[in-house]
Amino acid sequence: MTKSPLFGVDPWAVTQEGWDASLHEAAESLFSLGNGFFGQRAMHEETYSGHSLQGSYVAGVYYPDKTRVGWWKNGYPEYFAKVLNSTDWLDMSWSVNGHTADLAMGPPTQYRRSLNLREGVLTRQWEWITPDGIRLKVDSERWICKARPHLACIRYRITTDKACDLRWVSGLNGQVRNRDANYEEMFWKRGHEGGGERGYVQTATAKLDFEVGVAAEHRWEFLQDRAHSLGDFVPQDWVSRQELNLRLEAGDSVVLNKRVAVLSTLHAPALALQAKAMEVLDEVQSLSHEELRAEQAAAWDSLWKQADIQIEGDPKAQQGIRFNIFHLHQTYNGLDHRLNIGPKGFTGEKYGGSTYWDTEAYCIPFYLGTAPARVARQLLEYRYRQLDKAIANARKLGFKDGAALFPMVTMNGEECHNEWEITFEEIHRNGAMVYAIDQYVRYTGDRSYWWQGGLEVMVGVARFWAQRVHWSELRKAWVMHGVTGPNEYENNVNNNWYTNYLARFCWRYTLGVIDVIRQEQPSYWNQIATQIRWSESEALDWKAKADAIALPSDEVLGIWLQQDGYLEKEQQLASELQSDQRPINQHWSWDRILRSCFIKQADVLQGMMVFEQDFSLDELRRNFEFYEPRTVHESSLSPCVHSVLAARLGMMDKAYEMYLRTSRLDLDDYNREVHEGLHITSMAGTWMSVVMGFGGLRIVDDGLALAPVLPAAWSGYTFQLHWRGANLHFRLNNQGLECLLEGMPSCTLQLYGQSVTLESGQALVIRPSKA
Amino acid sequence: MTKSPLFGVDPWAVTQEGWDASLHEAAESLFSLGNGFFGQRAMHEETYSGHSLQGSYVAGVYYPDKTRVGWWKNGYPEYFAKVLNSTDWLDMSWSVNGHTADLAMGPPTQYRRSLNLREGVLTRQWEWITPDGIRLKVDSERWICKARPHLACIRYRITTDKACDLRWVSGLNGQVRNRDANYEEMFWKRGHEGGGERGYVQTATAKLDFEVGVAAEHRWEFLQDRAHSLGDFVPQDWVSRQELNLRLEAGDSVVLNKRVAVLSTLHAPALALQAKAMEVLDEVQSLSHEELRAEQAAAWDSLWKQADIQIEGDPKAQQGIRFNIFHLHQTYNGLDHRLNIGPKGFTGEKYGGSTYWDTEAYCIPFYLGTAPARVARQLLEYRYRQLDKAIANARKLGFKDGAALFPMVTMNGEECHNEWEITFEEIHRNGAMVYAIDQYVRYTGDRSYWWQGGLEVMVGVARFWAQRVHWSELRKAWVMHGVTGPNEYENNVNNNWYTNYLARFCWRYTLGVIDVIRQEQPSYWNQIATQIRWSESEALDWKAKADAIALPSDEVLGIWLQQDGYLEKEQQLASELQSDQRPINQHWSWDRILRSCFIKQADVLQGMMVFEQDFSLDELRRNFEFYEPRTVHESSLSPCVHSVLAARLGMMDKAYEMYLRTSRLDLDDYNREVHEGLHITSMAGTWMSVVMGFGGLRIVDDGLALAPVLPAAWSGYTFQLHWRGANLHFRLNNQGLECLLEGMPSCTLQLYGQSVTLESGQALVIRPSKA
Repeated sequence: MTKSPLFGVDPWAVTQEGWDASLHEAAESLFSLGNGFFGQRAMHEETYSGHSLQGSYVAGVYYPDKTRVGWWKNGYPEYFAKVLNSTDWLDMSWSVNGHTADLAMGPPTQYRRSLNLREGVLTRQWEWITPDGIRLKVDSERWICKARPHLACIRYRITTDKACDLRWVSGLNGQVRNRDANYEEMFWKRGHEGGGERGYVQTATAKLDFEVGVAAEHRWEFLQDRAHSLGDFVPQDWVSRQELNLRLEAGDSVVLNKRVAVLSTLHAPALALQAKAMEVLDEVQSLSHEELRAEQAAAWDSLWKQADIQIEGDPKAQQGIRFNIFHLHQTYNGLDHRLNIGPKGFTGEKYGGSTYWDTEAYCIPFYLGTAPARVARQLLEYRYRQLDKAIANARKLGFKDGAALFPMVTMNGEECHNEWEITFEEIHRNGAMVYAIDQYVRYTGDRSYWWQGGLEVMVGVARFWAQRVHWSELRKAWVMHGVTGPNEYENNVNNNWYTNYLARFCWRYTLGVIDVIRQEQPSYWNQIATQIRWSESEALDWKAKADAIALPSDEVLGIWLQQDGYLEKEQQLASELQSDQRPINQHWSWDRILRSCFIKQADVLQGMMVFEQDFSLDELRRNFEFYEPRTVHESSLSPCVHSVLAARLGMMDKAYEMYLRTSRLDLDDYNREVHEGLHITSMAGTWMSVVMGFGGLRIVDDGLALAPVLPAAWSGYTFQLHWRGANLHFRLNNQGLECLLEGMPSCTLQLYGQSVTLESGQALVIRPSKA
Repeated sequence: MTKSPLFGVDPWAVTQEGWDASLHEAAESLFSLGNGFFGQRAMHEETYSGHSLQGSYVAGVYYPDKTRVGWWKNGYPEYFAKVLNSTDWLDMSWSVNGHTADLAMGPPTQYRRSLNLREGVLTRQWEWITPDGIRLKVDSERWICKARPHLACIRYRITTDKACDLRWVSGLNGQVRNRDANYEEMFWKRGHEGGGERGYVQTATAKLDFEVGVAAEHRWEFLQDRAHSLGDFVPQDWVSRQELNLRLEAGDSVVLNKRVAVLSTLHAPALALQAKAMEVLDEVQSLSHEELRAEQAAAWDSLWKQADIQIEGDPKAQQGIRFNIFHLHQTYNGLDHRLNIGPKGFTGEKYGGSTYWDTEAYCIPFYLGTAPARVARQLLEYRYRQLDKAIANARKLGFKDGAALFPMVTMNGEECHNEWEITFEEIHRNGAMVYAIDQYVRYTGDRSYWWQGGLEVMVGVARFWAQRVHWSELRKAWVMHGVTGPNEYENNVNNNWYTNYLARFCWRYTLGVIDVIRQEQPSYWNQIATQIRWSESEALDWKAKADAIALPSDEVLGIWLQQDGYLEKEQQLASELQSDQRPINQHWSWDRILRSCFIKQADVLQGMMVFEQDFSLDELRRNFEFYEPRTVHESSLSPCVHSVLAARLGMMDKAYEMYLRTSRLDLDDYNREVHEGLHITSMAGTWMSVVMGFGGLRIVDDGLALAPVLPAAWSGYTFQLHWRGANLHFRLNNQGLECLLEGMPSCTLQLYGQSVTLESGQALVIRPSKA
């Protein structure tokens, strides 16, 4: 199953050498840029008439596209929020002696495109010979400023080998569409444009009141004695552009430094947007291109210092993990509670740019480990602020008394998804909200979130579960019918083990937190208990349900059952599938997939990873050996879980195979869909594979435990961890494990089952007892 | 639960007295006309600017509307065939002194609309006073000729009480749309128009090659000495119309006799359509209005002689059954194997006018009982001709070796539906094909259909079932996972009892038929066995599967289980539901409906009706008493089954309640949706309620058995039956049961469990032993 990389392997870069139009949309995804506030696929700056998925996205700006279904069912949401392709700020066209540069029409004689992961810069170098024989070299770089929320820069140089006439038009274009529009609507309406020394385009969404303003400034570099004319930015319908006409002599170069400010009404009122955009450009007026470039490198350097993972002896593995960490930190920065992480980030339209449970189950641990606590906390706050809508959503489905059901897919807290088996039934997402709070408190030690919003979320969720189960006299247990677990290749099943287990966790965890709050924050408790209409009978109810919820299992096999009746299915192994049948979701009709025993992604095993402290290694092994061979890993969220668990079980080959699959999912295009965008949220799973898998990280009884092991293909690796305000650094190689603590006087943790105390700044080395 | 009639109760009519615009769309449905080849909702002839669901339908002409789903799943069909609203041949507008008659703008001072069920004629009488005080009386009648496939007639009279100027435009209008269009497309493209003495409009569907040609002829009656001008039919864009301007004196009447020919390319090539339409008009050139009217009455009289059911002492029940029989025979006539019966017939757009399993499960018994054998046989042939597409459909879903899956919804044999839980899983429809063949052979005695197509259908279906089950070692049984039974309030369940039972029937019945064919038609068998690649191992396989298919049951309750795990559901009764929660499909989200124990329509009980000979009365009673109280009857196909079974169990109150509900479903608008069209296919269930329910008709061991009983509300009733070429007439009242045989020398049947022989033409009377 190993695949070939689409592009060059390098520890700090992804590089496309040579032009291949068929890979262009894939490259547009892989080379995407972003800074958490806005982002962009790596379209060509200049005219490109070939296939291209245009995508310039502004975080938090969405369009409620009217729901489209074949058969309406009660409870479906009225719209599906979609991330918007917005004003194109690359917008550029140039021609030489009347021949327009367009790689689709005149392919380049040389081509190189490279994403510099260390510094967050995309560069291109290429050469094109015009029909009249003029050889032009292009050298461009661009970045979206990590240190400045609203600024992006382009430096674009053209060099000619012969005298020629250059016409170069650059600016902003607001006349853009989404490829994915249910009714082929234009999502934007025209706002206004500005011209003169700077270009400006403001557009407004056709529904809701979002507006986006984009300003551009050009700094041209060319020999001033060359004949030329340079106009102002000219605003007209939806665009604002400047035109340069320039006589070039042989060997001349001309450079356009383009700076762009991108803002939305999330950051300024519509009427102030233009002025605010100008301010963004004003602020960097005195900075040269090189200074801004250095600032970008410094910002990323600071990030890498906290988040980098080095892998020695395995360039593909190294590139994979850095590529994943890079994109995750391009997508989300924790600076705005209204934002979250779409499954494709700023790299495509699919999944509408909306928030899924991926955030809580995958991204929260990642950001907890690689960034200050405030980043993950912002993600918790996002859900807290949407609690009212989660309660309203549950009410719409017939729940009451403050029960909350967080949406499967959302932009503003309202449900967007519209497949009944997902929207109404894939409710394990609700438990992920509580799991995320627990993770946050464990990693950061910051329990204040419990009484600063967390408890309200927990209670809403626990109440939902309490109403969602019913007593089966037949079974003498609380049962939960009609659910879809994480394995979406089963729909509408009864007693999905993972979901039931999670519900039990939510009840018990919430009751535990309430006990603590009562003790430690009595005045808060008094106030909130009234507000949420708490009654002790509710505690008894949750406890009773937790103690007697159905958890299907098979005694003979000694495994948990994914759901009632799983063993009545025809039992087959994924290895028995013919290769022309895979992925099954592209070859089989839906009913056949549902009837089969094949598992899309970890389900029981997801639960055994999440609640690993509850299970013995033997128990885990039995379940892993049963379920993994039945898993087709057709969700991007699957391989990482299996990598983590396989590493824990010492099945290093399997762990490594799964690691490569998760870390290089997009780089090697395992699912043949990278042209649609990257799997941003599953990238967090790659980090988990290394840190929780090979690193063996566990949080046990509120303390840290690690047991790093070395895959055979690696000569060594390092990783680091944010832990309660401190930073922990680990390096493992054949010489042993080296640990370093920073930012905390000392820290006691379990290493390979032994309690060890690290002192700040002092490296501790553990020599290998076993390899 | 008894409802009030929307309109007047009369044994032979439905009559609306007084104008109520809010009931207009409901009336348009109820008063619909048709003759099996074309049909029409009862729109007003003259201008009507109020709410109206325009519907003029031509059988077999459809539009493949591009499928619209939120989330595509493998195996979904690319289109949903829709019945087309086609050229409006009522098309008429008249004004007096410049005031246009339009009931929405100037309501009538009197209004009466009546559908004459005995003669198949719709009449209207109304009076309107213009703003300038002219009192106009309108008296119109129209019908679609039962005896002539392509002809319809309108007679429309206007009488004035004062002198006035009348302008009257009438003709044809091809510029029509469907209300239900996935992408708001126009389904038609313009063909051509004709004018002169007759009007003509030909339109073509925008996809596929259907064309519809409609010709109109006007015969005006007015005093020729009145000042007037009468033009020719003037053809122009999509329309062809004639205009009369006439000076009327006080007391004058003017009559328009409009004759319309409606044809499609099912009946003539596109180029010949116009000539053919003219022929239709030519053929009746010499016939007066009165003669055509008498012909219509005679045609319906002949039908009623074979199909009427008289109910004494209960006008609502009487009206109900006749209304149902009338509409069924308006919808289908068995003259064309390409046609079938849409759930709404010619009365609305919903369900696309397509064929459902309703045809086999409900309509086949009805037409067998009330019409010559050829009518039902035509319905069988329809499926036989679509067998190749059923095999292709199964192949698309992963089945092989000639397994056939007939579509859930179809126009031409291809699947149209696109909800996975229905399209791929509601597969019991496939068994209905075999059930229908069995019914046909039992009623008609005509076994030739077995070797004239029937066997091929049976084998395709039996093969499908054989591949659809798998062996469960755990259960030591063949199981069928992932199905939706007739009760669509359960989706994706395992071992739906009805479906499994039906599969077993299909295997055993087909094997039985093969045995007969081998004996009786050896040369056919030799040929077909090669063609279908028959092998004896297949017979063994089917037999083994039939002998060991899982049939879930509960020993304690002594009932069949609707599906695995049904008893783990929270058990509630429909009577416990608050009335503001009903119907639950309008108040509950889909997951809540699925989780509940509530049953949309007969499921286990459907099977116990269909295979009634397999079960004892006690067994039936236990199941009925368990399931009926859990049934919400939110499918129009539900009450009739319960009525039949309740009658069998002697639960006459329940049987009568359910009879009223099925027979007056539309007349009393139980489901508040009659404005969308009538429930045509469920009307066949009404007939079943009387004949199989109260009449106690069973076919036992290839013979007829009856045990008619009398509901308390009735003083007597009659019904009749086609049986193997003969006609049987029954009359039951307090005096006893009277039986009459026609068309066969003698016939032995079971009456109340006693074997009785009827002699042709001699009435046999059985005096009541018990009431």
